[in-house]
Amino acid sequence: MLKVSVLTIGDEICIGQVVNSNASWISERCTAIGCSLVAHSVIGDVSEDIKSEAERLMKISDVVIATGGLGPTHDDITKTTLCEYFGDVLVINHDVLQFVEELLSRRGIKALERNKAQALVPSKCRIFPNELGTAPGMLFDKNGKFLVSLPGVPREMKNIMDNHIIPFLKKQIFERNEDVALFKTLQTSGLPESAMAELIGEPSSFLSGGTLAFLPSYKGLRLRIGVTGKNFDDAREKLSKIQNHIIQKAGKFIYAEDEVTLSEAAGILLKQYNKTLSVAESCTGGLLGADFTEVSGSSEYFMGGVITYSNEAKISILGVNAGTLAAHGAVSEETVKEMAEKVRILFKTDYGIGITGIAGPTGGSAEKPVGTIWLAVSDGSGTDAKKFVFGTDRKINRERAVGTALNMLLKKLKNEIID
Amino acid sequence: MLKVSVLTIGDEICIGQVVNSNASWISERCTAIGCSLVAHSVIGDVSEDIKSEAERLMKISDVVIATGGLGPTHDDITKTTLCEYFGDVLVINHDVLQFVEELLSRRGIKALERNKAQALVPSKCRIFPNELGTAPGMLFDKNGKFLVSLPGVPREMKNIMDNHIIPFLKKQIFERNEDVALFKTLQTSGLPESAMAELIGEPSSFLSGGTLAFLPSYKGLRLRIGVTGKNFDDAREKLSKIQNHIIQKAGKFIYAEDEVTLSEAAGILLKQYNKTLSVAESCTGGLLGADFTEVSGSSEYFMGGVITYSNEAKISILGVNAGTLAAHGAVSEETVKEMAEKVRILFKTDYGIGITGIAGPTGGSAEKPVGTIWLAVSDGSGTDAKKFVFGTDRKINRERAVGTALNMLLKKLKNEIID
Repeated sequence: MLKVSVLTIGDEICIGQVVNSNASWISERCTAIGCSLVAHSVIGDVSEDIKSEAERLMKISDVVIATGGLGPTHDDITKTTLCEYFGDVLVINHDVLQFVEELLSRRGIKALERNKAQALVPSKCRIFPNELGTAPGMLFDKNGKFLVSLPGVPREMKNIMDNHIIPFLKKQIFERNEDVALFKTLQTSGLPESAMAELIGEPSSFLSGGTLAFLPSYKGLRLRIGVTGKNFDDAREKLSKIQNHIIQKAGKFIYAEDEVTLSEAAGILLKQYNKTLSVAESCTGGLLGADFTEVSGSSEYFMGGVITYSNEAKISILGVNAGTLAAHGAVSEETVKEMAEKVRILFKTDYGIGITGIAGPTGGSAEKPVGTIWLAVSDGSGTDAKKFVFGTDRKINRERAVGTALNMLLKKLKNEIID
Repeated sequence: MLKVSVLTIGDEICIGQVVNSNASWISERCTAIGCSLVAHSVIGDVSEDIKSEAERLMKISDVVIATGGLGPTHDDITKTTLCEYFGDVLVINHDVLQFVEELLSRRGIKALERNKAQALVPSKCRIFPNELGTAPGMLFDKNGKFLVSLPGVPREMKNIMDNHIIPFLKKQIFERNEDVALFKTLQTSGLPESAMAELIGEPSSFLSGGTLAFLPSYKGLRLRIGVTGKNFDDAREKLSKIQNHIIQKAGKFIYAEDEVTLSEAAGILLKQYNKTLSVAESCTGGLLGADFTEVSGSSEYFMGGVITYSNEAKISILGVNAGTLAAHGAVSEETVKEMAEKVRILFKTDYGIGITGIAGPTGGSAEKPVGTIWLAVSDGSGTDAKKFVFGTDRKINRERAVGTALNMLLKKLKNEIID
């Protein structure tokens, strides 16, 4: 397999100010074409560290993909450091220079010397044009190993990756006749990790060289199957055998394949059966609506919702009975049921979801501790409500409330629509 | 300074399925107490790789903080690998065993053998209890260097970090009399990176050994000052000099210090002056409401909102004029103004925000391309609306819409309340 490692250069990642989403994006893309990802490494903008990590990663992988440190300011030292490391000199690249001047001129900016210096590139490296910024991508090679250097700005990096680096890697895999790696994820909900492991059985009995990983999260448990093959057809066949075993054992807990989210899975069913949905959110404050509308095309089934963060809004806008709130409180079975029913009627939708709870960290009582969340799903024939008591972390409580509400909806949709 | 590196173990991170937010969280926490973060490393669940990275990172740092691979299934090999690496044997820890049995029993689960095995720990390592899961934290030492192994589940890792590892690191810094690193971030909005650099002036003239980084994002530009000192008092003094220079030059563009978000900054003003807010969201589908309600105590000023994803909802629930929609369309100055005004009236709040646009990737036209977003902020005396044309990425367009709306609100609040 073509071994790839990812080198991220930048103090802001190292000190934890910025999450390293570039590394996971690059890894995902390379994994998708069959590469084997062997390591990620993050270092600060320090010349010696860049050289020693380039050296180490080129030993353990065929291709190193580096990002960051290519900007026009004094703290960007990647280009000069790599030029030194590969024993090269900087020369002006006229295509890049012309592009930089045109780009800045389109933005109404006069190119400064420091902008023009972006067109200085190592003489022996291959240049990949950056359509969205001033720093081009660069490809170095040494003893049959490659190092790619890309800007750290995500959209610039992604553009060069998709247009140039991914095709380059594909060509390498083809020319070297490399084996490919293939992964598949099955998304499950309703069973904890250890019980799922028992249910599926001893891995060695059905994996025959493949791998199986258990990835728990607040929204359920993901099972990731991994195999390698001489080519994608071969890999697919191996994968499908393992997948069939798991479906046979645990099929009823699987709600989706690959990176389909709960809200996407629900959306697919709603769309397929021409049903609509609305939401009434209190403690999640719009998070459930945001989750549904993250999906392009969700307007076909998601009509909208009401964020009733205050009691008054629950009464005046949603139409929850003031007496219900007075008698049982905002966080109660009675209130959440009315929320789900009233929003369904207000938006004239087939389904309505209600969420109300104490997200925390304050606001709890002995009777209703922080983390108490009531969820309800309503349709024309009735309303189901359930109470959950999560933990004390506000962010996690809100995410779990959304995940659990989606699970409730999905179960109801499967029972009502499919059965 | 106490040098710390972060080792993340797990195929899911390596292949890009999961973003490595644990590493940035750990780095941020360690940076905050004065540690110097030297590297992050990510490897798969491979015994040889775990050993060689433990070896390498213990050479370049004083403390290695490792996460992942401590679960109860077959793919979790960190504990046995580290036990081997440090030449130790696994023994049963009765405190951990008792805790695991109690934890599972509280969840109504009978402890399986694989769960009980979580209580097997290397005999010589120090154990840190995990209050939220079955895998305890472990501290190994070798030749004056330390390696900490923590579970990869974020809330479990964070709990052990805050309760045990951070105090341990503080003690190390104190006992070794180490220098400390200190950072401060100033959040700005309204000026691009290059213009801000011009305004602040030549860094060498005021940094005197410190560092200044420019971190642009969709929500504004962050300026990060970094210094080192013999202790925190010394570092704070150095930092404060640099900060004062920047405030003097660019104070009016700074809206917050450190990691205060735009919605928090707006919330602080609303609360202070006893004002309230509601939101009407179309293309962001609840994202702005979710942003406001992420803050505990936001119910004091955030009354709620309406997610009017369909035109019908805009008319029937929010009360937008059907004629306005027919004449100008859902993505227009007229519609967004009515959304902001009507939601303000509906929720009886001092301020109302409206968002409507084409998030993409489909749905655009020549006149209104994908990325066209109208934003409005309304108060009793009038409504301001602005059009923006962002890019083609749905997720980024939605985030930029929320960030820009918050910026508009913040400006209005500052002008009206403070001036």
